[in-house]
Amino acid sequence: MSDAPIRIAVAGMGKIAHDQHLPAIAGDPGFTLAATVSRSDARVAGVPHYRSLQALLDDDGVAVDAVALCTPPQVRYDFAAMALARGRHVFLEKPPGATLAEVAALERHAADAGVTLFASWHSRFAAGVEPARAWLADRRIDRVSVVWREDVRVWHPGQAWIWEPGGLGVFDPGINALSIATRILPRPFFLQSATMAMPANRAAPIAADLHFRDTAGAPIEMDLDWRQTGPQSWDIIVETDAGTCRLSGGGATLTVPGGTERGEDREYAGLYARFGALVRAGASDVDTSPLRLVADAFLRARREIVEPFEDQSR
Amino acid sequence: MSDAPIRIAVAGMGKIAHDQHLPAIAGDPGFTLAATVSRSDARVAGVPHYRSLQALLDDDGVAVDAVALCTPPQVRYDFAAMALARGRHVFLEKPPGATLAEVAALERHAADAGVTLFASWHSRFAAGVEPARAWLADRRIDRVSVVWREDVRVWHPGQAWIWEPGGLGVFDPGINALSIATRILPRPFFLQSATMAMPANRAAPIAADLHFRDTAGAPIEMDLDWRQTGPQSWDIIVETDAGTCRLSGGGATLTVPGGTERGEDREYAGLYARFGALVRAGASDVDTSPLRLVADAFLRARREIVEPFEDQSR
Repeated sequence: MSDAPIRIAVAGMGKIAHDQHLPAIAGDPGFTLAATVSRSDARVAGVPHYRSLQALLDDDGVAVDAVALCTPPQVRYDFAAMALARGRHVFLEKPPGATLAEVAALERHAADAGVTLFASWHSRFAAGVEPARAWLADRRIDRVSVVWREDVRVWHPGQAWIWEPGGLGVFDPGINALSIATRILPRPFFLQSATMAMPANRAAPIAADLHFRDTAGAPIEMDLDWRQTGPQSWDIIVETDAGTCRLSGGGATLTVPGGTERGEDREYAGLYARFGALVRAGASDVDTSPLRLVADAFLRARREIVEPFEDQSR
Repeated sequence: MSDAPIRIAVAGMGKIAHDQHLPAIAGDPGFTLAATVSRSDARVAGVPHYRSLQALLDDDGVAVDAVALCTPPQVRYDFAAMALARGRHVFLEKPPGATLAEVAALERHAADAGVTLFASWHSRFAAGVEPARAWLADRRIDRVSVVWREDVRVWHPGQAWIWEPGGLGVFDPGINALSIATRILPRPFFLQSATMAMPANRAAPIAADLHFRDTAGAPIEMDLDWRQTGPQSWDIIVETDAGTCRLSGGGATLTVPGGTERGEDREYAGLYARFGALVRAGASDVDTSPLRLVADAFLRARREIVEPFEDQSR
């Protein structure tokens, strides 16, 4: 492939597309925004807009090398399969699909078509993640605590799909924590037991209490809660034989016994740099381990019914 | 490895061990029963018996090459990890674990230890399965219907663990159907939507209605129910461009337009022949796709509360 910018279309013009994808694409000389796709009128001035991905792909007048899919996970497979079958590279927002089996099928489609599939996990590109991984690589892990407590009314106002079957409820942010933990911890881990709090009027959990353990026996406790008001927590604390490693602010700030470092937010810039490198290398990156841990939690958790959740924002 | 019989221990001396594993081992000259492990007194005359797997592995007086794990899935990981770490080949009853991540970890342990791990799916060795696979290989699949309706009181009397978190409820038999479907259908398939019926007093579903589709778009409908009295159904019906393929009796009987064939039950004989071949070849076989489809169902299903289930058998 030449060094010409990758002509990319963004499909699903919701909050994450506007807040993150469009600025990241605009800031990366390796990409140029070729089109947008949305059932709504949300568009970018001067950029061709289509009501469906099929309409875009059927239009010989616009050249598109790649598609970034920012639609809800329940409809991501069909769009991804269509784009891959027509020879386009695909960037999947997290989670990469509504089920593990459909992501495995997409991975085969991409291989068959000889194009790139990237299952992105933006939190893995937070500033503290790679330094934390390096610091932890040779430590003895004694105990891990993951605390992800936020106010769903602030972060997901009116997003009804997140509460539907196939939406992940509190695991929508929680999977970010799992994407970091699976990256920084030196050994794989798996679920031992879990409890999920299910609002009486919703199909997805509003909170969860999870007990994992790694293959050397270290306990990994995870506290997810969407009912947090006041200060929010997105922290991973790892106790080791060399002291405590604390990643806070969703991976932005790393504190180890030697000091604290806080980097600027370059998550989506990092994702697009990675996607560009994959396309140029002719490679794919489809790590479903965070979604696998979530599926395991749904498979194994004890469910408790809690008070109904009413979203006053709409 | 020599051609001497594989000295195997059976751990977890419940119904499936007595009904299937012990007769299959006794009938296969490639194996010899070296020990049994159970917290209870269930044992085999003339064969050393241990109260724990650790006690067996610590006893230098008994030589064991392999362990068959027939314990409930919730405790399978620890036993399997211990046996693999001590250089023993491991045969896992279905499902191979309580979570997908733990099975992936076991696969790595087995590779590290240079021994065989076999995630067994007994229904794949039913007489009609391989002929069905061959017949379907080149057909256009139009529609698939999986009907697995049985009486839980007949087949799982008093098995409380099957209703606990990590037990699979009606997916305990249902995963047998999925292990066949993933074997005989020419293309992968994944879940579109599902409903699970949850007894008000239980943590696992008593029935489920699942809508899958394969990567070419063919619908695969699955009807699982544990409340069936009278005639039981374990049928997979595949409609193709060359007529209907019907596997019934849990895979035992195959009917295609050319006629009907019913083979004798050799499922566990087939499993042990396969395990022996894997051990002698130094290979593993860990296909988690049936469990992955079940995890996807738990992840994505809409849950409906139904009447409590009381097990009058105890």
